[in-house]
Amino acid sequence: MNALTAPRRYFEDLAVGETVALGSVTVTREMIFEWAREFDPLPFHLDEEAARKSLLGGLASSGWQTGALTLRMLGDRFLNGIASAGGLGFSDLKWKRPCMANDTISATGTIASLRRSAHHPDRGIMVVDLVVINQKGEEVMTMSLANLVEARAERGA
Amino acid sequence: MNALTAPRRYFEDLAVGETVALGSVTVTREMIFEWAREFDPLPFHLDEEAARKSLLGGLASSGWQTGALTLRMLGDRFLNGIASAGGLGFSDLKWKRPCMANDTISATGTIASLRRSAHHPDRGIMVVDLVVINQKGEEVMTMSLANLVEARAERGA
Repeated sequence: MNALTAPRRYFEDLAVGETVALGSVTVTREMIFEWAREFDPLPFHLDEEAARKSLLGGLASSGWQTGALTLRMLGDRFLNGIASAGGLGFSDLKWKRPCMANDTISATGTIASLRRSAHHPDRGIMVVDLVVINQKGEEVMTMSLANLVEARAERGA
Repeated sequence: MNALTAPRRYFEDLAVGETVALGSVTVTREMIFEWAREFDPLPFHLDEEAARKSLLGGLASSGWQTGALTLRMLGDRFLNGIASAGGLGFSDLKWKRPCMANDTISATGTIASLRRSAHHPDRGIMVVDLVVINQKGEEVMTMSLANLVEARAERGA
């Protein structure tokens, strides 16, 4: 059963306060270098000596990479099981401390709000608060995602 | 001359209102599939038939991919030429319309604010407003990035 055939939850099936553990990922040196070469070729993401001399104090992932890894976890553990119709945007993303090479980051998502679209009653807007911590339990990143979710009632399902 | 040896601008050298054209990139089907497989494996980013049936109406990039491509342009055209010390976060990211396969997106960055750090006078916080448009001039994404920049005065340079 794949994502196209699995039973999916719709807007009406979601509740504010639902919390989902999104799993974890270890961020290796190689992942950091590979990302930096393609998307964020700043010295302190590409060169360990430059990284040590930087404010980060060592090799750390690009913040956008930390976000991409988090959203992959969100997709796998949550969005792919609901009738997600795409992201609208983010608010208040904070990189609270660096994700250093070989850190293991874990994420949790909590449904913060659910609002039926005024213009499109066949869908709603879900806000998910995401918290990412490292293996010491320290917060690495927080952000809130606004995501469209299809509603069941208007689809005759 | 590379990023480690090029003359760099410091916090004092920046001014609110400075606008930088960040160039453009064409987002191909292959780029969309490659990203989606690694970071956002939702049906409407991986399957053209599912994409046509989705609210997006066709194959479109993951919003986080649009952001990654924009930040690459920001690095190449701007951050790599200043004493950027890393991102703090961003606010108000909005995906205003999808970036469809084969769209060419262009970005512009404008320095919206500059504030010396109260706790660390050797650095300051720069907020850059980013606007991404497609080849029709329609807004695809907007976001504001808060970024640390090293100051010259406190470094004896």
